[in-house]
Amino acid sequence: MKESDSPHLSWELGALAELLEAELVGDKNATVSDLATLGTAAQGDLTFLSNPSYESQLSTTQATAVIVHPKQASKCLVNALVVANPYLAYAKVSHLFDRAAKPLKHIHSTAVVDSLAIVDPSVSIGANAVIGAGAVIGAEAVIGPGCVVGANSVIGKGSLLHANVTLYHDVRVGDDCTLHSGAVIGGDGFGFANEAGQWQKIAQLGGVFVGNNVDIGVNTTIDRGAIEDTKIHDNVILDNQIQIAHNVEIGEGTAVAGCTGIAGSTKIGKRCTIAGAVGIAGHLSICDDVHITMRSAITRSITEAGSYSSGTAMSKTGDWRKNAARFRQLDGLAKRIRALERMIPGK
Amino acid sequence: MKESDSPHLSWELGALAELLEAELVGDKNATVSDLATLGTAAQGDLTFLSNPSYESQLSTTQATAVIVHPKQASKCLVNALVVANPYLAYAKVSHLFDRAAKPLKHIHSTAVVDSLAIVDPSVSIGANAVIGAGAVIGAEAVIGPGCVVGANSVIGKGSLLHANVTLYHDVRVGDDCTLHSGAVIGGDGFGFANEAGQWQKIAQLGGVFVGNNVDIGVNTTIDRGAIEDTKIHDNVILDNQIQIAHNVEIGEGTAVAGCTGIAGSTKIGKRCTIAGAVGIAGHLSICDDVHITMRSAITRSITEAGSYSSGTAMSKTGDWRKNAARFRQLDGLAKRIRALERMIPGK
Amino acid sequence: MKESDSPHLSWELGALAELLEAELVGDKNATVSDLATLGTAAQGDLTFLSNPSYESQLSTTQATAVIVHPKQASKCLVNALVVANPYLAYAKVSHLFDRAAKPLKHIHSTAVVDSLAIVDPSVSIGANAVIGAGAVIGAEAVIGPGCVVGANSVIGKGSLLHANVTLYHDVRVGDDCTLHSGAVIGGDGFGFANEAGQWQKIAQLGGVFVGNNVDIGVNTTIDRGAIEDTKIHDNVILDNQIQIAHNVEIGEGTAVAGCTGIAGSTKIGKRCTIAGAVGIAGHLSICDDVHITMRSAITRSITEAGSYSSGTAMSKTGDWRKNAARFRQLDGLAKRIRALERMIPGK
Repeated sequence: MKESDSPHLSWELGALAELLEAELVGDKNATVSDLATLGTAAQGDLTFLSNPSYESQLSTTQATAVIVHPKQASKCLVNALVVANPYLAYAKVSHLFDRAAKPLKHIHSTAVVDSLAIVDPSVSIGANAVIGAGAVIGAEAVIGPGCVVGANSVIGKGSLLHANVTLYHDVRVGDDCTLHSGAVIGGDGFGFANEAGQWQKIAQLGGVFVGNNVDIGVNTTIDRGAIEDTKIHDNVILDNQIQIAHNVEIGEGTAVAGCTGIAGSTKIGKRCTIAGAVGIAGHLSICDDVHITMRSAITRSITEAGSYSSGTAMSKTGDWRKNAARFRQLDGLAKRIRALERMIPGK
Repeated sequence: MKESDSPHLSWELGALAELLEAELVGDKNATVSDLATLGTAAQGDLTFLSNPSYESQLSTTQATAVIVHPKQASKCLVNALVVANPYLAYAKVSHLFDRAAKPLKHIHSTAVVDSLAIVDPSVSIGANAVIGAGAVIGAEAVIGPGCVVGANSVIGKGSLLHANVTLYHDVRVGDDCTLHSGAVIGGDGFGFANEAGQWQKIAQLGGVFVGNNVDIGVNTTIDRGAIEDTKIHDNVILDNQIQIAHNVEIGEGTAVAGCTGIAGSTKIGKRCTIAGAVGIAGHLSICDDVHITMRSAITRSITEAGSYSSGTAMSKTGDWRKNAARFRQLDGLAKRIRALERMIPGK
Repeated sequence: MKESDSPHLSWELGALAELLEAELVGDKNATVSDLATLGTAAQGDLTFLSNPSYESQLSTTQATAVIVHPKQASKCLVNALVVANPYLAYAKVSHLFDRAAKPLKHIHSTAVVDSLAIVDPSVSIGANAVIGAGAVIGAEAVIGPGCVVGANSVIGKGSLLHANVTLYHDVRVGDDCTLHSGAVIGGDGFGFANEAGQWQKIAQLGGVFVGNNVDIGVNTTIDRGAIEDTKIHDNVILDNQIQIAHNVEIGEGTAVAGCTGIAGSTKIGKRCTIAGAVGIAGHLSICDDVHITMRSAITRSITEAGSYSSGTAMSKTGDWRKNAARFRQLDGLAKRIRALERMIPGK
């Protein structure tokens, strides 16, 4: 959004209504200069109602304007920007209020750019970043301070690497991606053969392919492939501290929450949502449109769309100890039930 | 502790007794120059007894002196520093023997400090560190080599950032905090709205607030808030590889062990202890004085102090497979028990 | 392997057979210049058959040559390199085809090497790396760009630190080790004593000892010991995002997969294989030759070799919810079974 280049301006509601294709109920000349939550908003703030449990705050909010669904518009006592999807409208408008400084389009004097790297003139490269031989940095890309981009790696147009991101060699990142600090792309897959008790390393000859519009979270790691590439397709979003092993493939539009680990060669379909701290074993195939709940262990392939889970629910530790002890007797208990059933007349 | 500036000196027991407000049973002129465990200590070493299972080593230790509880003092055959809490006394005295080099109070010539940053003259900034515009670094703070401190971020007095820590913009760290290498504070929260299958990023406009005396472990990540700040209050201690999502709030004095993940907007109370590899879902409220055991999944709010758990106990894999298969029949088994009870005369 | 210095040459099968001590069935003058999988290999490629489920591809592969076991050699329609362990032979030959650029043996002009560091003339140090006072870097070692090696740390001969690795002070890494980007060795163990609600830090005075031929994955963290060293013995291989707490000891030849966490003072034996996302509590002892399956929670010591597990198997979320609810009644259900058994005549 071009407008975000001048975030300190205030916005007239009329202009926002046009931008969001919203119906404006209220004063088109009223201005907002910040975003806030419904409960804490003050005069001059824009807010939104997405979660219906906050609906009662519509009548008390001090905001200048609220982004709201047609159903709730009548309950809004201040200016309303009425849209079909308030959360999406909030997402779009949020960038107008982002005060993060925009990087200058220049290469910092302390950056080390190999003479064989190909860097578009519109690129920004931060202090102490290192760009290897044969690397290609596309137009308008931003490389944060302290980043290391390995030899022959490619970063597409408009992609943003925050500070201290590491790319090994032969990693291809598409256009308009965001890589957060501490993310490491292209480390060696965990491949070893055992020779009489000694682990012999297998060279990891593949690279990593990252499509367009991919978001990679803080300290998330994606290993290079053993022979072929590890692949993260367009519009995948990855949260923090995710581990993606060699030769994993993640389909378009899939979202993965923090702390999840995906073992080698597993293929995940499109539009999946994988919650936090999930573990997915290697060499599996997860079909499109699968949802996996938080902290589940996935040890078999999934061939049918739907929601999957594992684990046990939280209890007080004392109760849990008793039940967990019984878990270890579960097969025996089941057999005892069967034996009882055989003894009861009529069963 | 000022004394730690000269760690290579040896310490007279009399001086240590004064420092620890301990009763000295033995030779006040005897000296110790290193810390050791009860079992491995040699002449010239100081040690301590905290875990009662090591009590028998009191009679065989070669240490010059032992920090010991009054109850066990009589069993100590060497010099004894008698205190009510030997483990706490060990904690205090440990810093006297820390041989880690103290950083020089200067800015390394390769550090890149923006001309608009405000840096106290007593600060130490390591090689290749990068300090952004508007950042404020308080008195006696130490910024390790390779650290990146984003624009307008604030680091309080006496805080220590080890090498390669990354702070985004608008992160406030209080006084006397320690941030370990690879920690990343202020990355974007995982906020996206879905528009016809495409993920639309929501700008993360909040910052991160970290109080005083907070310890943040290696490769731990704390995301900035969506609109308001993510908040880590005074005296919170966070181990390594913890993930804290946007708008989480952690109350004073809470301790979190390694590999735990806390999802967005969850509030955790004061004085909680959360063990390792716990997963806590988003939008929950955990009250004060809650203990959560290792690897538990917390999916509901907790309103009563106490200890909580989930998971199953370890078995041999063969047994576990049988029991895990039965887990998937558990609801059916319970119904069969109910049916049996209905058939038994007298039930 | 010396030969990997010229990776762009092609290899004659006769030479490969000699290198691998393989029986060559086919044309010794045929050449291969790349590695590929059985299914995707083209003319000029070398491939291998290790997993028997791909055996049918032997008759259709377009590869120039296949590394194959004697049992399957007769089914190979192209040149065959026949060996007892095709996977191990693939591991060995893989390095011949690694196109990763070899680092130059020099110190980059932007690296900051303390005048009191001892650096072998054959060492390579990348851009913006920082080497502390008293550090020792052995022959042929490679320190990637952005690495920080703390004071008095030692890196053995031939060891490789990829970009942005951080070593604290007093860390000893043996010969021929590989440390991947984002790995942090020697951070403070999580040691605190509680004084009336305030956490008092315990100085972590031990170091970290890493043996020879150890592989440490991306963003893996190993804390320094409280008093004695944390120890990782020879030929241990650690995947990404593993957390190893203070005073852990891991025996020779043990392999640990990604996202596993090992709490303080736990000792793990030799030749163990610990799968991904396992959690191991502190102060345990795990004997030699133990296998732990994915995502298990280990809360007791293991004294007998074998395979161990915990957790529950994946179900559809609807089914899982019912069964998980029953888990919380498990102790009660077991008692009801016992009551039923008492009521049945003859039990």
